[in-house]
Amino acid sequence: MVLVDFGNSSIDVKDNGALSKLPISEIERVLEYKKAYYICVNSQIYGSIPSGWIDIKQYIDFDRYYSTMGIDRVIACEAIEDGVIIDAGSAITVDIKRDGLFCGGFISLGYKKSKEALADLSDALDVDFNLEMPLDEAAFNTPDALTFGFFAPLVSYIKSLELPIYLTGGDSDKFKKFLPDATIVDDLIFRGMEKIIKESIRC
Amino acid sequence: MVLVDFGNSSIDVKDNGALSKLPISEIERVLEYKKAYYICVNSQIYGSIPSGWIDIKQYIDFDRYYSTMGIDRVIACEAIEDGVIIDAGSAITVDIKRDGLFCGGFISLGYKKSKEALADLSDALDVDFNLEMPLDEAAFNTPDALTFGFFAPLVSYIKSLELPIYLTGGDSDKFKKFLPDATIVDDLIFRGMEKIIKESIRC
Repeated sequence: MVLVDFGNSSIDVKDNGALSKLPISEIERVLEYKKAYYICVNSQIYGSIPSGWIDIKQYIDFDRYYSTMGIDRVIACEAIEDGVIIDAGSAITVDIKRDGLFCGGFISLGYKKSKEALADLSDALDVDFNLEMPLDEAAFNTPDALTFGFFAPLVSYIKSLELPIYLTGGDSDKFKKFLPDATIVDDLIFRGMEKIIKESIRC
Repeated sequence: MVLVDFGNSSIDVKDNGALSKLPISEIERVLEYKKAYYICVNSQIYGSIPSGWIDIKQYIDFDRYYSTMGIDRVIACEAIEDGVIIDAGSAITVDIKRDGLFCGGFISLGYKKSKEALADLSDALDVDFNLEMPLDEAAFNTPDALTFGFFAPLVSYIKSLELPIYLTGGDSDKFKKFLPDATIVDDLIFRGMEKIIKESIRC
């Protein structure tokens, strides 16, 4: 079984258990598969996906989510019953599930983009963050102040939900420093896709 | 008594109780005062301030703050004994005082810059925020998800400090919607300057 997750800049593939990631420029290599299950958030390449491939999106009951919610977020939510999913990429999406029900989510600007935008504002804010600082009290120097400002409110809010925390996305390692009990799950999308295939397609 | 707060893009003046704001391009009008008490965060204009004017910075004990902390933040802190000061501008600074002591602060990217950076990431995120949404549960549509992602963690953290909240800066009205008990204080810097003049210069 081949699973494909088409993103905006890269493509993730799970080919009989083996994970790989390719840049979007190498899409032709991926499209050689005769059959695959896929999701796609990239509207520009949607038309080039073979008609014989199976779009997992059609098996989602969007009444349980909302119509403009990214399919990648929905599929990640399908992978768990209870928990908070933090997908820490260029944007950070946070989604909450309790007892199998989606309980809302939110979107914040990601780590690198926030850091860049702060650096653009003032030379004084163009400093490295301090990912080793504790978040137990506010800051007494600029690197700590920026680090605290980015992570502390978000981490504090997520902890307050008192749910298992799942981290995915390129900056999951940075959040893990401040959420040591969280689980990094690189293949959450594929876990969700496999669950849907098992429950909705192959049953 | 004339008080002047030189910012990066504008100049605030308090001339015998009357407040005014000028663009930095009109600095010559402000420099006509024979004597004034001032603070200045704008390194480019520092050299043009008359030598007879009095820089309030020299009366600050920076051991109570930290050396790279913006003078505007320090002066605002001097204005209060207990509370959280949110200066919501292009960056958001949050500073905490308890029993007259500075207890740290932090810096986050401001409302407009965050909104712009999110819109740059994806057309799907280029939507108006919903400043009327309640923050009591996470979101079920994109405008609410962006609004919640920007305000909810910050508001929740600030509320958890259980201190009086003082709002200043151009986006203070937006934060006031989610922090109804907060006090908007447009002249916090001048209140801080007046306190220092009274206690350190004129006593």
